[in-house]
Amino acid sequence: MNVLVINAGSSSLKYQLVNVETQQVLAKGICERVGSAEAFHKHGIDDNEVVIDAKMADHTDAMALVLESLTSGPTKAIDSLDEIDAVGHRIVQGGKYFDRSVLIDDDVIAKIDELAELAPLHNKAALMGINACLAELPGKPMVAVFDTSFFHTMPPKAYMYPLPYELYEKYGIRKYGAHGTSHRYIAERAAAFLDEPLADLKLITCHLGNGCSMSAIDHGVAVDTSMGLTPLDGLMMGTRCGAVDPAIVPFIMEHEGLTTQEVNDLMNKQSGLLGISGISNDLRSVRDASEAGNERAQLAYDMYSNSVKKYIGQYIAVMGGVDAIVLTAGVGENCEKMRRMIFAGLQPLGIVLDLEKNKARGFEREISADSSQVRIVVIPTNEELMIARDTFYIIQERQTAEAAGVDIHTEML
Amino acid sequence: MNVLVINAGSSSLKYQLVNVETQQVLAKGICERVGSAEAFHKHGIDDNEVVIDAKMADHTDAMALVLESLTSGPTKAIDSLDEIDAVGHRIVQGGKYFDRSVLIDDDVIAKIDELAELAPLHNKAALMGINACLAELPGKPMVAVFDTSFFHTMPPKAYMYPLPYELYEKYGIRKYGAHGTSHRYIAERAAAFLDEPLADLKLITCHLGNGCSMSAIDHGVAVDTSMGLTPLDGLMMGTRCGAVDPAIVPFIMEHEGLTTQEVNDLMNKQSGLLGISGISNDLRSVRDASEAGNERAQLAYDMYSNSVKKYIGQYIAVMGGVDAIVLTAGVGENCEKMRRMIFAGLQPLGIVLDLEKNKARGFEREISADSSQVRIVVIPTNEELMIARDTFYIIQERQTAEAAGVDIHTEML
Repeated sequence: MNVLVINAGSSSLKYQLVNVETQQVLAKGICERVGSAEAFHKHGIDDNEVVIDAKMADHTDAMALVLESLTSGPTKAIDSLDEIDAVGHRIVQGGKYFDRSVLIDDDVIAKIDELAELAPLHNKAALMGINACLAELPGKPMVAVFDTSFFHTMPPKAYMYPLPYELYEKYGIRKYGAHGTSHRYIAERAAAFLDEPLADLKLITCHLGNGCSMSAIDHGVAVDTSMGLTPLDGLMMGTRCGAVDPAIVPFIMEHEGLTTQEVNDLMNKQSGLLGISGISNDLRSVRDASEAGNERAQLAYDMYSNSVKKYIGQYIAVMGGVDAIVLTAGVGENCEKMRRMIFAGLQPLGIVLDLEKNKARGFEREISADSSQVRIVVIPTNEELMIARDTFYIIQERQTAEAAGVDIHTEML
Repeated sequence: MNVLVINAGSSSLKYQLVNVETQQVLAKGICERVGSAEAFHKHGIDDNEVVIDAKMADHTDAMALVLESLTSGPTKAIDSLDEIDAVGHRIVQGGKYFDRSVLIDDDVIAKIDELAELAPLHNKAALMGINACLAELPGKPMVAVFDTSFFHTMPPKAYMYPLPYELYEKYGIRKYGAHGTSHRYIAERAAAFLDEPLADLKLITCHLGNGCSMSAIDHGVAVDTSMGLTPLDGLMMGTRCGAVDPAIVPFIMEHEGLTTQEVNDLMNKQSGLLGISGISNDLRSVRDASEAGNERAQLAYDMYSNSVKKYIGQYIAVMGGVDAIVLTAGVGENCEKMRRMIFAGLQPLGIVLDLEKNKARGFEREISADSSQVRIVVIPTNEELMIARDTFYIIQERQTAEAAGVDIHTEML
């Protein structure tokens, strides 16, 4: 089965065509600056990439271009749209409604729309992606895969904020988490890599990219995660501050004369590594500057590693121990020095990094020392594959159910 | 030496007269609702307490009343004001200036005033207390003891927030901590109780009252603490939310139409145990309601214990282990059930509560099991004694220096 995986941003449309059985990526690309005069379309895998300037008034235009490049010209990957069996959409916010991936119907669309209040930019963008597919691939089954659904298993003590309870009832203010598809993927892969059932493991999963989140996964069940009502909560990130004294928010607003929107932008776009270093949101640039003696870059680096270290401790306490720590995404997969700093000083907790193994690059690998009680593994994430798989299973179950004459509606995986 | 310890709130004046050598409390009391028609003065120790309705237009009036009741009538504790050797003032915010207690002079007063921006209610109140003493006890040496100074040893990676660096430079937005006098006192007492040098211990100190804070004290040096720019940061408390997703602040302001002051009030006064339970900010009432089957009270109880548990984990990671966990204040000293929940499930980390010892009441005591690698001790806090002692040492050093003809100015302890 070929699944077209769609990840729509407010002015972008990212896609990947995946053969689920072989796990092969048949094509991938991104349309950027959709709706602007500078719109362009980048298509291709790794070194075999072409960039095409193209007019795209909206996501539907972008979708038409994507389908054209998939089926014709030098970028052709399939003979016709019939070879696309289904579409899987990444949706950021599934709120209280979605504890798993679902087949998209009118009710699902209405709920994604309703939840846009909790993730204004993201869910509205996802709906544009869904509408573009409805227009350009009419009748094709579509599945929604939510960043939040993996965390539906969190107990109330983990997902509630100690705010007036009425705010939870009225607006759904609680922790939903994010990056759930990535955490789910790396937890499953880590268990397979370690050759242990996921249900037997206490895992701490660390998605450390430009956005950062960590999760405590106790015997296969997500029991806590660092992102919250929004993806601003938790760890220090590339441009996001993570959790801070909430009294700082009104303090900044008053002293700088900022609106709610402006203070949100400050915390989401001008903070984190960028805010402290003044150099970049990219950890590589910050590392280089810090090695060249820049003190603010060194501080940013220290703070970032300290932030991760503290969450490791938190989740060890939450689960009463940990069997393995799993790292993924740009920083987690590639930054040898950051991993060294994160695990420095944790030897008394039975967490020992092997400095040589830590230097190696590659695919799934273990980087803990033989003496380490806690295993440390690096697992490159693959959210698209996870979305394609979910889509595959849901379509398959629907077909099985239809063949048996069962009415299954939407919730299946 | 007799030290009058003053803790001034915006409409209250708390005092204690302490003989430092004998550690005896000679008298104590509080003037409340100062400046209002309902002002009253409560004086006495434990069961021997009298409540006097009294007119107090301001803190100076209150101070005059206090001094009168110390020296005359049925509340008399000393023969004359000459028996007060010095005054020690509790000051909440010492900002970047004060890394220790200091003798109060004009410069110190100006700095406390300047720092009022960071703690508007508290530092202004402290100044009223200082001015009342200047008026009523002219020429008496006074010492300022800051809640924040114990945390001056924190490294930048612990005290900086991942916000734009300019906000730190411009306004001093960073973590200052609070309850420092209490953390310092219980750390010292715990070391003495455990018969180990403080400099040899990794301690986690937990001040759990209506306000809650925790600290990591590594070989006698405070390396992290949970309260931040303000005492709102960190743990869930009686009416305060602690750290939450900062994006929640603008979200609430927009949806509820709140001003910065109103959202501050909501987070400081209507959140925490009170906000979740809807019953009380007092853990005893919440516990009773939860035992009677109230689900929101049960949730509040769970969240509170979970919040403490997570900080224990954090600080174990920060220090690479812990030798002893020290509990104090209303909840920490008295709530057997909360302590049970905090330490539940931490056995794999070498932290084992002795359920029988945990039931006992009393003064300084150990409540960990013999099998516990980490010792757990309860130490009733005594901030007033600590303030009296600091005052004593500073006065003594000044006298020694003066006798030797050395100009020592203010910073001494």
